[in-house]
Parts: sequence; structure tokens; C-alpha cells
Amino acid sequence: MSQSEKVLTQAASRREEVLMHARRVIMRDGLEATSLRRIAREGGFTTGVLTHYFADKSELISACFEWTMRTWLDRVEGEVRDAPTAEESVCRFVSVAVPHASERHGEWRLWLNFVGTGAGDRQMADLLVETDLRWEALVTETLTRWHEAGLVSPRLPDEQEALILARLGDGLGLRALMTGDWDDARRTLVAALGAIGLPEDVARRALEPPAAEAG
Amino acid sequence: MSQSEKVLTQAASRREEVLMHARRVIMRDGLEATSLRRIAREGGFTTGVLTHYFADKSELISACFEWTMRTWLDRVEGEVRDAPTAEESVCRFVSVAVPHASERHGEWRLWLNFVGTGAGDRQMADLLVETDLRWEALVTETLTRWHEAGLVSPRLPDEQEALILARLGDGLGLRALMTGDWDDARRTLVAALGAIGLPEDVARRALEPPAAEAG
Repeated sequence: MSQSEKVLTQAASRREEVLMHARRVIMRDGLEATSLRRIAREGGFTTGVLTHYFADKSELISACFEWTMRTWLDRVEGEVRDAPTAEESVCRFVSVAVPHASERHGEWRLWLNFVGTGAGDRQMADLLVETDLRWEALVTETLTRWHEAGLVSPRLPDEQEALILARLGDGLGLRALMTGDWDDARRTLVAALGAIGLPEDVARRALEPPAAEAG
Repeated sequence: MSQSEKVLTQAASRREEVLMHARRVIMRDGLEATSLRRIAREGGFTTGVLTHYFADKSELISACFEWTMRTWLDRVEGEVRDAPTAEESVCRFVSVAVPHASERHGEWRLWLNFVGTGAGDRQMADLLVETDLRWEALVTETLTRWHEAGLVSPRLPDEQEALILARLGDGLGLRALMTGDWDDARRTLVAALGAIGLPEDVARRALEPPAAEAG
């Protein structure tokens, strides 16, 4: 109960509270096994509360994916943009693209769950592409900052290079989800930045766990 | 019946015949819904035939993944290695990494099915990593051929660049499975080859559908 109250305080609205519980159930049980009833039980409310906000499971799942990606992007956009130097923004970019903290890997697992389902679902595919446009824009903007600071010298236009980095990130996350080896994925991402000219000392720094991880 | 006879003639062994039917069922119904009973019905044999070769569903699925990847690699290794020129091997590499023919997309769908399951399964993860080593070796060898022919000039060692290309290919396939837009995925792959120096005229040729597709 006190846990539920805490969640309520954190959540901006009742709707978000539902999405928060839905996300926890999906991460734990997988999309297939998730049901409105199970989410209601998890959150300690009636299924009536759920159906007030979402017509059915499919609508709730789409909303949960959209909300998860949006809150993730709100957070990482701030983190990467606010880096005081271009070098620091490399470190932050690497640590959001291939996270260190194990809780962040849960977000990747959720993503794979959605992607696995989306392969046969037009609406989910559109939603994925749309939310990913924002990520690709952030990668482009960040790459341009490095480029202007003389940190990298890609042979392609920043936008095209960013698209390649975004899809490489997907492939790396997918592999790390299988093997559990996120350090290996991070090394490959940093190698790819080396391929567009990132100096070795910055690359080395980007591979260290962020000091502020605990904070 | 005559279809079943045809399959029997094509299959090197009864075990492969079982795997062939299993693959068809998985591609059509998904891993979750696949059962030994359903595969037996599809192939027109008893479940006893299946359990003669495979202890349970999980063993059959692992074997099916291993066999699918091995036969795919047997085919693409030959295709890419036998290219008469380095330029032609670029075209062949691109068309096996991001296939044109829609039947080949089924193999990707199957791969996503396996990867989605493998995320929580040590044995499946090991199998995926192991089979992928052969693909990464082929990419390295092919890249070295282009490199030696002066077609590309990557800043990283070929092996590291090949690893990046392999993971990029995973991310591109994943996205194309969602959107159905394989041409877009192919353009991004070819752009990534441009980023390591591939000349524009070879890039243009690699984007054309292969003439021998029908043959």
C-alpha cells in the first residue's frame, strides 16, 4: 500500500500510474502473458480503472510503448544536451546508447518485446518509427556537436552517419540482450566512433562507467 | 501427398524433413504457438517420428535454428566467395545481408523469432553467438578482399569493421521487419560501405536488384 502511494506521488496522473504498472508486468511476464486483469492486480485497482483509460490490451500496450520511449527520450535528451563539453557528451551518449546500470537493460528488454510484436503490426511499426525519429534527431544533433568541435570527421553527412549509428545501436542492444555482455556492445559502439575519427583518449574515457551513476 | 514426396526427395534425411516442416510452422504461427503435434500434422507424420529425433520442443527449436542458419551460411558463403570480381562481391554481399526476394525475408522473421526467445535462454544465446561467428568471419574475409582490391579504406582493422557491419545488419533487418521497407535498409547498409570508402558507382550497382534473382 505504501508502495502504491509512493508510485501515485511519483506519477503525474492516474493514467501514468496505470502505464507504470503495465510496464512492470510486461517487463516481468512478457507481452504475451500480460493481461488487463494482471495489470489491475499488480496496481491494486479494478479493471474498470484500466478500461476507463484504454479500450483494450492492444491500446494499452501501444500507449505503454509510446510513454516508455517518450520518458526515456525526455531523460536522455536532457542528459546528452546538457553535457558541458563535446568530450563529455560522447561519454553520455555512449552510456545512454549502451547503458551500464542493469535497470536500464530492462528498458531494452521491453523494447525487444515491443519490436518482436511490432513485426506483424502496422500501428506498432508506425509508432516505433515515429518515436525513433526523435532518437535519430538527437544522434544527428550530437554528432554535429562533435563534428564542429573537431572530435570526429565522418565521410558522410551527419544525418546519414547518425542513421547508421542508430541502427548499429539497435543491433548491439539486441545482441547484448542475448548474451548479457553490455561491455562488449559498448566497445563495438566506441570502435564505430573511432571509425569516424574519435580520438583514442576520448574513446577510453567513454568506456569508463559514469561517476554519477549512483547519483 | 505429392508435395510431401517432393519435400522428401529434396531433404537429405528424414531429420531434415522434420526440421523443414518445423521451420514452416514457426514462420507461419510463431514460436509460441508451435507444438510437436502441429509440426507432425504439417508434415503428415506421427509425433513419434519427431520424438525419435528430438527429445522435446525446445530441442527441436534449437536444432531448427542451427540448421536454418547453417544452410543459410552454406548458401551465402558460396555465393559471396564465388563472385568473379571484388565489385561483384559487394553486390552479392549487399543482396544477402539485406535480401531482395520476399521469401528471404521469411528467414529474417524466423531469426527475430529465435532472437526474441533467446533473450532469456542461455543455450539459445550461445547457439546464436556461435552461428554468427561464421557470418562475422565471412564479412571479415569479404571486407579484406575489397580492401586488397582498393575498393574500401576503413580506418579500423577489417575484423573490427566487420563486427560493426554485422551488428549494423542486425539492426537494419530488425527495422525492415517492422516497416517492410527493405530498400531503405539496403540504402543505409550501402551508405555505411560508402563511409569506409566504397566508390559511388559500385554503391549504385549494389543497390540494383540482382539480375540472377529469378534463376
